[in-house]
Amino acid sequence: MSISVLRTHDGWWVQTPRGATQVDSAATTTAALLADRAAIEAAATATATVPIDTLELLSPVTSPCRVVAQMTNYVSHVKDSGMNPDTVPLTFFRKASGSISGPSADVIKPDHVRFLDYEVEAGLVFGRPVPVGASIDEHNIADFVAGLVIANDVSARDVQLPKTQFYEAKSYPTFTPVGPALVLLEEGDFKRFDDLRLQLRVNGEVRQNMTVGSDMIYRPVQALQALTKFQRLDAGDLLLTGTPGGTALKAPSKPVEIIGSLLPPAVKWKFFFKAQAKNPHYLQDGDVMELSIATDDGVLDLGIQRTVVRFAR
Amino acid sequence: MSISVLRTHDGWWVQTPRGATQVDSAATTTAALLADRAAIEAAATATATVPIDTLELLSPVTSPCRVVAQMTNYVSHVKDSGMNPDTVPLTFFRKASGSISGPSADVIKPDHVRFLDYEVEAGLVFGRPVPVGASIDEHNIADFVAGLVIANDVSARDVQLPKTQFYEAKSYPTFTPVGPALVLLEEGDFKRFDDLRLQLRVNGEVRQNMTVGSDMIYRPVQALQALTKFQRLDAGDLLLTGTPGGTALKAPSKPVEIIGSLLPPAVKWKFFFKAQAKNPHYLQDGDVMELSIATDDGVLDLGIQRTVVRFAR
Repeated sequence: MSISVLRTHDGWWVQTPRGATQVDSAATTTAALLADRAAIEAAATATATVPIDTLELLSPVTSPCRVVAQMTNYVSHVKDSGMNPDTVPLTFFRKASGSISGPSADVIKPDHVRFLDYEVEAGLVFGRPVPVGASIDEHNIADFVAGLVIANDVSARDVQLPKTQFYEAKSYPTFTPVGPALVLLEEGDFKRFDDLRLQLRVNGEVRQNMTVGSDMIYRPVQALQALTKFQRLDAGDLLLTGTPGGTALKAPSKPVEIIGSLLPPAVKWKFFFKAQAKNPHYLQDGDVMELSIATDDGVLDLGIQRTVVRFAR
Repeated sequence: MSISVLRTHDGWWVQTPRGATQVDSAATTTAALLADRAAIEAAATATATVPIDTLELLSPVTSPCRVVAQMTNYVSHVKDSGMNPDTVPLTFFRKASGSISGPSADVIKPDHVRFLDYEVEAGLVFGRPVPVGASIDEHNIADFVAGLVIANDVSARDVQLPKTQFYEAKSYPTFTPVGPALVLLEEGDFKRFDDLRLQLRVNGEVRQNMTVGSDMIYRPVQALQALTKFQRLDAGDLLLTGTPGGTALKAPSKPVEIIGSLLPPAVKWKFFFKAQAKNPHYLQDGDVMELSIATDDGVLDLGIQRTVVRFAR
């Protein structure tokens, strides 16, 4: 049975069917909290509760931490991106952890950004160090992964594509809403990872809706086996595992792409974004994003993240 | 007059014309050392010295820290890479700081990597926090940049190009040799940045040799104005400012590139690396790399970094 941990300015809470119970811990970081498992478990069985909707929730993952993300990791999103799912390599990039924001905080579009997009992702939160060279397999992965979170990998497409490196376009402040809950996994829970359904709605309209098992290309075990060749992780670090299809961005058709490859990059991107300007799916000022990740039977449920898009002036 | 700081297992040293003097500081991180400027200056005027060649030098930049790098930032390297210097965007990526190694440590090629390449780069080391939204200009940049280092941005080209994101290919352990010295800048020194000459030799043969002023596209002021839109920096963090032409990697000719764009990526890269296998400039087991960065008049001199390539078996 998993435990859902919440965070507010007052500290840490455990979500129970009766409400939220405060955790008796002085931890100010996710890493410190995860080291105090006894306090979390004590809160899970306590009776003094407050209604959850009275809490102003922050990200249960504190920054600074490492935020590593997997590129194009669902068949449906690879196709949206104009690539071949059979040959897309297992690829990572970094996001600045300063981009982490709370599960109900506004997502702020910087003034220079034109094409703002969303990506619902399941995030793995690590509970102990994963040194370079660590041996990870199906049997021990749950020893390293403490829990799961909902994350939105918000992306400025007009920055991301011409620059080719994803780091800046996905790292502006508020571009990684995380939460509401950090769901701590118990024995056997991690085996349900494939059953998670990721959903994202914009103003109530379903844009993304897919289970991990039916669509993910590189599973967490493979991802960590590759990552531990070059990147140490520590408790409290976050790995985003990719997004399914349904983002606003859709790659041009193959013939259009080939014509584009004959043009200088500046001309190619001018044409591409001129066409994208007619795409109604990019995020607009005031749009409401609702993200959920859960197994269909509700045994694992990461909650609902609800944020509003605001355009900076 | 700049001060050259060195680091060994025993602590920190200041390089003087007479030898190295130990700094009386308990600092274990670059950030902590930079906060103890009085101890550094005391060492710079002390008389008890040891010969520098008796010291086993470590990187003067300690990890963990943030390592941010600029992509394709010299006209000559942009041309080598098959891109247009007039339109190449100001772009950043991250390297894992676990890739930092000492100025005489071996550079280890992982067994799965086939095409290992070198990139001499001038690194800026920050001396105090640079929050997102900080206002950086020609007049105050020296307040934020504490000093300069030589760095080699070692790159696994056969990982970098097919994956498109540079993070993994440049983040394996020992892929960022730093040092020998962290050269702390005094009043007016930063104005000499354009006069720095970057050189890299492999087994004595000059491969890279260029001054910043004649070739760099986006200067540190522009880079920091862009970076502070999304990435906080702290004391001890490192910004790599790009490499000039002369790397082993050379882009294919434009007609070959256009034919390549018509092929599936896996086929394109197979052809590309088949051709690269005849390129004698990729690093081989036992190759000696010597990197230097200095003004031609020797007023600013970051020293000489000398590393040997070793192939992991």
